[in-house]
Amino acid sequence: MTDPVLAHALDRQPQLIETLKTLVACPSVGADPAMAQGMEDARRIVEARLVAMGFANAQRLTPADGRGQPAIYAERIDAPGKPTILVYAHYDVQPPDPLAKWETPPFEPVERDGRLYGRGISDDKGPMMIALETLAAFVAVEGRLPVNVKLLIEGEEETGSPSLPGILEAHRALLAADAVLSADGARWRPDLVALNVGSRGNAGFEVRVQTAAQDLHSGRYGGIVANPLHVLSKLVASLHSDDGRIGVPGFYDGVAEPTNAERAEIAAIPYDEDMGFAAIGAKPHGEAGYSSLERLWMRPTVDVNGMWGGYTGAGSKTVIPNEAFAKLTMRLVPGQDPDTAKQAVIAHLKANLPPYAKMEVYGDRGQGGAYAVPPDHPLLKAAVSALEHTTGQSPLKVRIGASLPLTEIVSRVLGLDTVMFSFALSDENFHAPNEFFRRSSIADGLAAWVRILREIAQIAPGDFAPYRR
Amino acid sequence: MTDPVLAHALDRQPQLIETLKTLVACPSVGADPAMAQGMEDARRIVEARLVAMGFANAQRLTPADGRGQPAIYAERIDAPGKPTILVYAHYDVQPPDPLAKWETPPFEPVERDGRLYGRGISDDKGPMMIALETLAAFVAVEGRLPVNVKLLIEGEEETGSPSLPGILEAHRALLAADAVLSADGARWRPDLVALNVGSRGNAGFEVRVQTAAQDLHSGRYGGIVANPLHVLSKLVASLHSDDGRIGVPGFYDGVAEPTNAERAEIAAIPYDEDMGFAAIGAKPHGEAGYSSLERLWMRPTVDVNGMWGGYTGAGSKTVIPNEAFAKLTMRLVPGQDPDTAKQAVIAHLKANLPPYAKMEVYGDRGQGGAYAVPPDHPLLKAAVSALEHTTGQSPLKVRIGASLPLTEIVSRVLGLDTVMFSFALSDENFHAPNEFFRRSSIADGLAAWVRILREIAQIAPGDFAPYRR
Repeated sequence: MTDPVLAHALDRQPQLIETLKTLVACPSVGADPAMAQGMEDARRIVEARLVAMGFANAQRLTPADGRGQPAIYAERIDAPGKPTILVYAHYDVQPPDPLAKWETPPFEPVERDGRLYGRGISDDKGPMMIALETLAAFVAVEGRLPVNVKLLIEGEEETGSPSLPGILEAHRALLAADAVLSADGARWRPDLVALNVGSRGNAGFEVRVQTAAQDLHSGRYGGIVANPLHVLSKLVASLHSDDGRIGVPGFYDGVAEPTNAERAEIAAIPYDEDMGFAAIGAKPHGEAGYSSLERLWMRPTVDVNGMWGGYTGAGSKTVIPNEAFAKLTMRLVPGQDPDTAKQAVIAHLKANLPPYAKMEVYGDRGQGGAYAVPPDHPLLKAAVSALEHTTGQSPLKVRIGASLPLTEIVSRVLGLDTVMFSFALSDENFHAPNEFFRRSSIADGLAAWVRILREIAQIAPGDFAPYRR
Repeated sequence: MTDPVLAHALDRQPQLIETLKTLVACPSVGADPAMAQGMEDARRIVEARLVAMGFANAQRLTPADGRGQPAIYAERIDAPGKPTILVYAHYDVQPPDPLAKWETPPFEPVERDGRLYGRGISDDKGPMMIALETLAAFVAVEGRLPVNVKLLIEGEEETGSPSLPGILEAHRALLAADAVLSADGARWRPDLVALNVGSRGNAGFEVRVQTAAQDLHSGRYGGIVANPLHVLSKLVASLHSDDGRIGVPGFYDGVAEPTNAERAEIAAIPYDEDMGFAAIGAKPHGEAGYSSLERLWMRPTVDVNGMWGGYTGAGSKTVIPNEAFAKLTMRLVPGQDPDTAKQAVIAHLKANLPPYAKMEVYGDRGQGGAYAVPPDHPLLKAAVSALEHTTGQSPLKVRIGASLPLTEIVSRVLGLDTVMFSFALSDENFHAPNEFFRRSSIADGLAAWVRILREIAQIAPGDFAPYRR
């Protein structure tokens, strides 16, 4: 028998899609100051819907300095004695460029062949509407939510969430909750029921190696001065042993080896390595002793993202350049502190710098730690149970090799864990032309969201206590 | 008692300078098609002077295909039973850019503080006029030259002498001689009487390392694919051991170790290493076991002149590039065949390329071998003797770390040795704004040229035979 709340929500899918289209028609591109009105329009549509759903205490949140795109907050504290969940989504979208590659205009949403097209429809307006309309269905059918819900709908996700730490810090009491449930964060693959339980952190910097005050002619100086491209190449070469292991003392400090259970779990994931690598024209290469998925999810990296020096134009020039540059970033795993890991790499480069060269380190980029949901976290268990109930399959626990700033920021500032529960799929062209959202994901998502809220309602609030930091 | 020929030449310095200024006023920039008239004007001035000097058989030489800037040829076969010397100079000049940095216009020659300013006045029009007016003085005073002289005045020296091999091949019989005396090729330092007895050769190519068909995101692929900048850095790092020795099997094949006598000769040269390196803001670095001058003159090099890949703009981008590039050149010493040396480097790179990367080698640049005048060559002895006579000092034997295409081409095509006998000085801003030629170098040069022709006249032509190839 279908849950009456779900039945109501499913009945009202046409209205959900209408609201979604109205929202997608707002060009809420946070990166583009010319689209400020699109941002404001999107905020007003969301706020109007929240008020209509009976959410209270609606307000816009900014950091203490009042800067940045405000996040939308509202709450329904309907369920005394039940857990309080902070539901996360975002209303800003990626820029639509390159416009010429869109088959239909990015801010004129249309449905074709079971897919809804438009910028931001998969990331994250569609998934956000699933969460909101699930909550609306509970209110409509039962007059209340089964758990206490606080909504945090961010406006800077696509620009790196620069204000999010400040917003969380400035509104700590308002945002107090037992855990975070995110309507953002794509599912890994259309063919797998999966939950993302971890992401890598990152850090990075730029380095300049100098061996002389000016470029020199190789006829006059070749063989008697150091070539900074040779010096930098030796430094870069020293970062990895031939078997792919990072040769930086201290870099692996704190990194936990995957347990046998984790390795077995990863090995059980259907993953066609040959096809994946053929698609990018590459061969698997990485740290010896680990599978590709283990490398991607459980092992840290150091990568040179750019390197340059000397003459790079057409033809040949017999110059010995006086300086050479490299941009480095690292991907980090749980147990690594971003700054400690970065300083280990810098110290290694300095220790290996020969006496005839100078080195400057600068260009510090934003950094963040890795994140992993504790395997026994009650919200993760609720998510697993909800997906088992609605799909008939036990979701695979997957991770991503990239970073999810949200999870790391929430963990660091609020001490809360986050479960990603989006119904976007990773092939839906987000951040690219012709972004779309599968029409069928709406029903799947409503079912899962109704179910997870009922699962959460079964958890004693005290069960979250061991996980709050 | 002053040699009457020299006395005549010294008396006529004002006329020499007038002709020189007329010549420098012709913008004979071979690299710039818009300055074709300047090239032609320069040729006509030189040709008119040669005819006035009684030179015969005057003609313009091109390769068999008739292309390129012609070289000017003329001869005086005045001295039966005496050696025949091919005297080399060039009438083309470097482009004058950047024009704004000239204190007076480059093609309006002027004298200031004992220096004559103008583009090409030091390289090579001033030194050429010294050679020509020496010959004119012999004709004026003695009615003939003391040796047979063939003049070859090139028009493509500043653009890499692309036609010179073809000119020599097409006019082998006409150019037959015992040795080549060059009015081009600067003296090393104003404070030293020196003869340049050797130059390094060169070769080069470009390399592209590829690890994937497209750039990849380090979040999605970091740690599971090879980074071509890491691969290329390891390849570049493998070219040199930490003590500066080239780690390419076969690269040193045929290279002769400096003899004790050569090392002693080099060690005796006054050379303020500290000052030289302080001037360029660098510290000495090179192959262990050799002094800086030994490295520069007697040891080959492999240098990366340019290297690039990935994101090189402002800020940070978490890209794993799919390809990386390097431009390499080498400087070669006697005993090394340019193609063999280059192929050794390429084979080393290929042998060290890991299986997960591809490499493409292309961008072959022009190449040439090293050159050294045989230490006992009669023309070298004549040059030493002439400088001893006119300066009272025994000239130091020096080399240059750069390449002199002329010497290598003449050796390869005509089988002749070349002695560089220019009176330009290396600080005279050739190839730079405000090129100048010391007024005092004219008298020094005339004295040395008169004397060397008299010295050559004392050589039995048969003494050259062992050195002709």
